[in-house]
Amino acid sequence: MPIEFELSEAFLRSRRSNKWHLHPSGVIPAFVADMDFAVAEPVQAAIARLVAGKEYGYPRREGDSTVNAAYVRYMRRRFGIETEAALAQPINDLVQGTFAAILAFSEPGDGVILHVPNYPPFREAITTTERRLLPLPMHDTGTRHVFDADEMRRLVDARTRIILLCNPQNPTGRVFSREELQSIAQLALERDLIVVSDEIHCDLVYPGRAHIPFISLGADVAARTITLNSATKSYNIPGLRCALMHFGSAELLARFQRRILPRLLSQPGVAGVDATIAAWDEGQPWLDAVLPHLDKARHHVIDVLAAEIPEIRCHLPEATYLAWLDCRALALQVPSAFEFFLDKAKIGFSAGETFEPTATQFVRMNFATSRTILDEILARVIKAVRSR
Amino acid sequence: MPIEFELSEAFLRSRRSNKWHLHPSGVIPAFVADMDFAVAEPVQAAIARLVAGKEYGYPRREGDSTVNAAYVRYMRRRFGIETEAALAQPINDLVQGTFAAILAFSEPGDGVILHVPNYPPFREAITTTERRLLPLPMHDTGTRHVFDADEMRRLVDARTRIILLCNPQNPTGRVFSREELQSIAQLALERDLIVVSDEIHCDLVYPGRAHIPFISLGADVAARTITLNSATKSYNIPGLRCALMHFGSAELLARFQRRILPRLLSQPGVAGVDATIAAWDEGQPWLDAVLPHLDKARHHVIDVLAAEIPEIRCHLPEATYLAWLDCRALALQVPSAFEFFLDKAKIGFSAGETFEPTATQFVRMNFATSRTILDEILARVIKAVRSR
Repeated sequence: MPIEFELSEAFLRSRRSNKWHLHPSGVIPAFVADMDFAVAEPVQAAIARLVAGKEYGYPRREGDSTVNAAYVRYMRRRFGIETEAALAQPINDLVQGTFAAILAFSEPGDGVILHVPNYPPFREAITTTERRLLPLPMHDTGTRHVFDADEMRRLVDARTRIILLCNPQNPTGRVFSREELQSIAQLALERDLIVVSDEIHCDLVYPGRAHIPFISLGADVAARTITLNSATKSYNIPGLRCALMHFGSAELLARFQRRILPRLLSQPGVAGVDATIAAWDEGQPWLDAVLPHLDKARHHVIDVLAAEIPEIRCHLPEATYLAWLDCRALALQVPSAFEFFLDKAKIGFSAGETFEPTATQFVRMNFATSRTILDEILARVIKAVRSR
Repeated sequence: MPIEFELSEAFLRSRRSNKWHLHPSGVIPAFVADMDFAVAEPVQAAIARLVAGKEYGYPRREGDSTVNAAYVRYMRRRFGIETEAALAQPINDLVQGTFAAILAFSEPGDGVILHVPNYPPFREAITTTERRLLPLPMHDTGTRHVFDADEMRRLVDARTRIILLCNPQNPTGRVFSREELQSIAQLALERDLIVVSDEIHCDLVYPGRAHIPFISLGADVAARTITLNSATKSYNIPGLRCALMHFGSAELLARFQRRILPRLLSQPGVAGVDATIAAWDEGQPWLDAVLPHLDKARHHVIDVLAAEIPEIRCHLPEATYLAWLDCRALALQVPSAFEFFLDKAKIGFSAGETFEPTATQFVRMNFATSRTILDEILARVIKAVRSR
């Protein structure tokens, strides 16, 4: 019996989503980070209230009713951290915030450190702005992916300005430890670097690990940290668009706004704002119901692959509903493992090479779906691999 | 008997709008360009469809289902002009597009011509980006406001780069004639200027006048024209946020995107996009019902003021639901006519000085409300003026 928030394939295909319509209808999608679940009731109620009142004019959300204030409450409740509403700037989406931060705190030719593999738009934010991507490899230890702090230090040159951190890390699912984060903070302090910390997956951390917000490492660290967050990933509302940049000090915010005028970034629409406020204020019970389901799904994926296709190397993700599948040992003899699974299994993964050009034999799998659909994905993958 | 789309004051106050909650509850607002009317049924249906399907994931709107395609259909239907979907870029709001265009096509210190008085964010887009505002006065002929083409020519210096055109003009309500527009186009061609043409009020033109899209003046003119438009003003959906920049040539678009990366501007949320598509495709019957109501309201305002307070000088607007009231002859002996009406009449107009610093004795009045509320506004203004 599927749990209540699971949606059927027929219903999923009836909606005008990118996930279910990018590929032909024979393909099951397992790529873009959308969950195949209904949204949380408080989120739906917030949007329904707008629709009932036809409240589409210039909105007024003041004081406690702003998304900034909801973020402050959320950070306090979830992480026991005090933030300031006045130091946050609502934006449309996290990628916009990444581009804005890179443009504000570096010049063309400057270096930006990024763990690789990484979320494709973060790579794009560095390269299309003509900054230099300084790649910090995530090494596979046999049980998880880690970076080497010495390797990180050696990357820094005179024109390195930013560390673009994605924590929890996408696509490896790592939740960085305090020690790992402190090595980054120490380097940032020593070499006067700005840290842009994407923490969008921080609600999706599994038992045994805990998310540490980067700004919690100290006031001197916070003063050089821009945190990017959004409820869109945890609550399945990316189409509504609403995210937030939080600046660790008033000086940092002022420095940012001198370079990137707020009017150039605009502001999120009222549907995104109200949905986000509802998610952060009232969404936790829904998330508490979803996480055990995702936890079971991640174990299921790992267990089935280990039993059926041990050549596919995959570590249990510590966070996110994404698994990073190393298919090199399959020796698929194709330019891209993504193409193999799309052609032979009719499964639409995310292509590894979009996360790291050399990762052509990797795919990223989204397992946030019903057990029925997940089992079909796994069955098709197994069959395709065995028939190759 | 109020017509169906009119909303009661009690209902208007129950919604979380800026218009009805900026001022204390004793004040009747007549400022921000929101209409006190229910939205068009097709717009409501488009949003209700999203809510029914809980379609808040990454959306897919392709081909004819994009807002760009809807804009092409709209321009063809309304103005008989062929535009290209590929030359349009959806954005969040028109002000964002104005800032982006100014940043892309000029440098700090460069000159931007702007009719004055004008919409405050347009002034801001020039001054906060450290460009020079070259003010082109709208002169009161006794029946309407016009600019002097010779005066415009004399404004242009070696570092003038842009004419920021607002047509129909806010706040004077002018719909520029072909001759007026051609004088601007001629100057742009001669002096190699970019024209940023805000046409957001183009649906709200009254009988006897016709809107002429700037790009219709010729291919050479279009090649240097960025048109800004949005359904938010005509259809009362600014809170959802969706607007569009249209570039008159592929070269102009490419030149823009080299300076302002699309990812920095983000994309509008799905609620704004779907509402806009519905408005442009199916909203005309609603607009056809609203316009006669607004037409009656504009005449009513002008007639009542002429009869009761002839000292207030106001010309019948040719477009928009905004009236520009020259209160200088009242000799109010206050620093700002806006403050006088807010204090003495409990009416919240837009302050003239925000449209032009010297216009302290002007206010802009929004008359897009029910006759009941409009009559209360007029009665309060008359009483306050007579009691001064």
